[in-house]
Amino acid sequence: MAAQRLVVVGGDAAGMSAASRARRLTKPDELEIVAFERGGFTSYSACGIPYWAGGVVDGPDELVARTPEEHRARGIDVRMRTEVTGLDLGGQHVLVRDLESGEERRHGFDHLVLATGARPVRPPLEGIDAPGVHGVQTLDDGRALVDALDGGAGDRRAVVVGAGYIGVEAAEALVRRGWAVTVIERSAQPMATLDPDMGALVRDAMTGMGIEVVTDTEVTAVRTGPDGRVRAVATAGREHPADVVVLGLGVRPETALAREAGLPLGTSGGLLTDLAMRVRGHENVWAGGDCVEVLDLVSGRTRHIPLGTHANKHGQVIGTNVGGGYATFPGVVGTAVSKVCDLEIARTGLLEAQARAEGLRYVTATIESTSRAGYYPGARPMTVKMLAERGTGRLLGVQIVGREGAAKRVDVAAVALTARMTVDQMTALDLGYAPPFSPVWDPVLVAARRAAAAVKGD
Amino acid sequence: MAAQRLVVVGGDAAGMSAASRARRLTKPDELEIVAFERGGFTSYSACGIPYWAGGVVDGPDELVARTPEEHRARGIDVRMRTEVTGLDLGGQHVLVRDLESGEERRHGFDHLVLATGARPVRPPLEGIDAPGVHGVQTLDDGRALVDALDGGAGDRRAVVVGAGYIGVEAAEALVRRGWAVTVIERSAQPMATLDPDMGALVRDAMTGMGIEVVTDTEVTAVRTGPDGRVRAVATAGREHPADVVVLGLGVRPETALAREAGLPLGTSGGLLTDLAMRVRGHENVWAGGDCVEVLDLVSGRTRHIPLGTHANKHGQVIGTNVGGGYATFPGVVGTAVSKVCDLEIARTGLLEAQARAEGLRYVTATIESTSRAGYYPGARPMTVKMLAERGTGRLLGVQIVGREGAAKRVDVAAVALTARMTVDQMTALDLGYAPPFSPVWDPVLVAARRAAAAVKGD
Repeated sequence: MAAQRLVVVGGDAAGMSAASRARRLTKPDELEIVAFERGGFTSYSACGIPYWAGGVVDGPDELVARTPEEHRARGIDVRMRTEVTGLDLGGQHVLVRDLESGEERRHGFDHLVLATGARPVRPPLEGIDAPGVHGVQTLDDGRALVDALDGGAGDRRAVVVGAGYIGVEAAEALVRRGWAVTVIERSAQPMATLDPDMGALVRDAMTGMGIEVVTDTEVTAVRTGPDGRVRAVATAGREHPADVVVLGLGVRPETALAREAGLPLGTSGGLLTDLAMRVRGHENVWAGGDCVEVLDLVSGRTRHIPLGTHANKHGQVIGTNVGGGYATFPGVVGTAVSKVCDLEIARTGLLEAQARAEGLRYVTATIESTSRAGYYPGARPMTVKMLAERGTGRLLGVQIVGREGAAKRVDVAAVALTARMTVDQMTALDLGYAPPFSPVWDPVLVAARRAAAAVKGD
Repeated sequence: MAAQRLVVVGGDAAGMSAASRARRLTKPDELEIVAFERGGFTSYSACGIPYWAGGVVDGPDELVARTPEEHRARGIDVRMRTEVTGLDLGGQHVLVRDLESGEERRHGFDHLVLATGARPVRPPLEGIDAPGVHGVQTLDDGRALVDALDGGAGDRRAVVVGAGYIGVEAAEALVRRGWAVTVIERSAQPMATLDPDMGALVRDAMTGMGIEVVTDTEVTAVRTGPDGRVRAVATAGREHPADVVVLGLGVRPETALAREAGLPLGTSGGLLTDLAMRVRGHENVWAGGDCVEVLDLVSGRTRHIPLGTHANKHGQVIGTNVGGGYATFPGVVGTAVSKVCDLEIARTGLLEAQARAEGLRYVTATIESTSRAGYYPGARPMTVKMLAERGTGRLLGVQIVGREGAAKRVDVAAVALTARMTVDQMTALDLGYAPPFSPVWDPVLVAARRAAAAVKGD
């Protein structure tokens, strides 16, 4: 019997995890695996790019978990600089173009994995394509930004557009490089992935680091100088001088191919899959990573949450299923952690606005505590905000802003959300205690106590 | 109507938390609260004493969360240096002795809280009471040890007897002070709260810190010099020179009073309570902290697990119930974290030997990972061992040995144990990921994947 043919579209986390897992479960004469990647790298950590830009880590090689050669040595036929330009699902083939030669041809499949990732939001502004305007999504973006910062053009003034997690990580990189940084955000506070009261803590900390934070403000144009390079970023009634501009506006699912092929997309434009990561209604088409919507277990809705950790899990699930095993991806609870210099930021579950949008009634509790016993050296402050459903007391979400030792505490809440615990149940959790690691009541437990009291109306 | 009378025996974490919580819920004309403490301090962190001895934190005042005066100012009548010498449960009074004046009298109660704590194990060895032999359980112990170390007698050689968490924390303190340290342990490895294979990692790390670790060895005597002070610790066939000896042999429930009064005790000698922390069979007698056994939710047995974090929770529950509210302490999963210098040690759930003793059949998975993305500065190695039940895949326990960022990851497993998750469910947990905080697969998830594969027989 001829080998089955697996075609993977996209050579980063989800696609190559799927390919690698399927390869481990099958022999080459059972399954032939071909992966098409239009760029020049496979299996890289896009999340590491801001740290490369900031000089914290080396790049780009260090950010590549596995090169095309390494994948090939493991029995995966990786075709680099090769773009998939069309899907013929009925005919079970993809159209591919070699970006070097321009040559086009068909490639047949029995199983198709769509791992096309996401593309950065790039508003159609005057000047947006000028030299000096940078993204931070690909290793090529990273190289261009590193070169620009090394060049140190002009007065070393940078503007970051967008204060979500990509924006604040870019701001950190620029500060580390000694640049003067302005961050422009259209929301009322940085980190719109937090409630505004928690975002305000991030703003205060960023301001304290010497970062200018401009909120409630839309960028209207990128101004260029006589040399055609970026000179400033314009907002209503003001210009912010800039030798470098970094776009940190987030990403959208890259699903043009899927849309043309009539595959089902959610409201964000992300592909819709079943729990086995099979595209809904298509027995032999799978999708994972930044191009899909995932089930949010707290709200019961699908959402677009582009994160490398999800992409890897999706790839693992797809590869297991394609390889003849069985696995599912049950969903997410919305956990995210990031930092800007020594400020740690974390969230999981629903924000207040999200809870309201779901029709949920809730109580909130916000507490201050420390990362270690108060008397222990290095104890750093943190603020924990917790949302719990009225009546039932079910945990709905947690947000944490603090310093060292703050962010990963959100994991406790992520597990509690997954297990659908109440905040009252959480007050009794047997979390690790010793003075170098926690106060006798861990900050998450302090928040749970306060939230449980609020649920009871105390 | 006359006020009800609450008598608290023991002025540390459990007792004073109970008193404080009851005070917040009731008015003084509803509830009169008297607490008897035979020592000189209230509400102190015994867990901080090794760090005081090591010069990491100041003491003793910094280790006192609330002084007798502060408790009195909040409406709790604290009687210091006053020992409760007998309980008359039928007559609803306690016998108390003023340790200054020697005066004895009765004190009536409507509610009685027993928070008598634990006493250190002190084997009946020749020389055990010699000057230079120290405990680390009370602030007075801490003061005596700090004075001895400041004095820096002799060659600054110390022997720590016992390599449990108190022993290893004491060893760290002595190393920090520049003393030459030998730790003597009768088990095969240090940290008998871990499986031997994980304990071996602790031994290697301690040896690397210059600590001499002597295992499988019983101490037979403490040798004294002509001045009557400690000179050496004797084991079979060998003497270990010592200018200071620290006893780190753990503690036993202090329940002599309870035993005399006929209250129910478990196999460890700890008091047995219901989930509301009421002593079984006694409507108005409560107990909490290091003098009780707690329900281990994983094995279904009661165990003696003396930890400040449990004591505080017990006090909170007791105070709520005495104050007219309702609360329960559902039990523990056996979480403990500690460190020796920069080595972090954590466990939760059952060890292999404990699982076997419960008749459980299990698989194990042991993995190596890092605290941050491998390419991110400060990524430190850690080893995670996971136990899962055969067949069901239910998580049974986790042990972690590593460096910075290792120990508190055990909290994820503690919540998963509480929620009775399977290791397969854990593989999908939505834990926080960003390069400064975790590899794309958190070490706990890597262990869960390996354990889930072992459950399936892969």
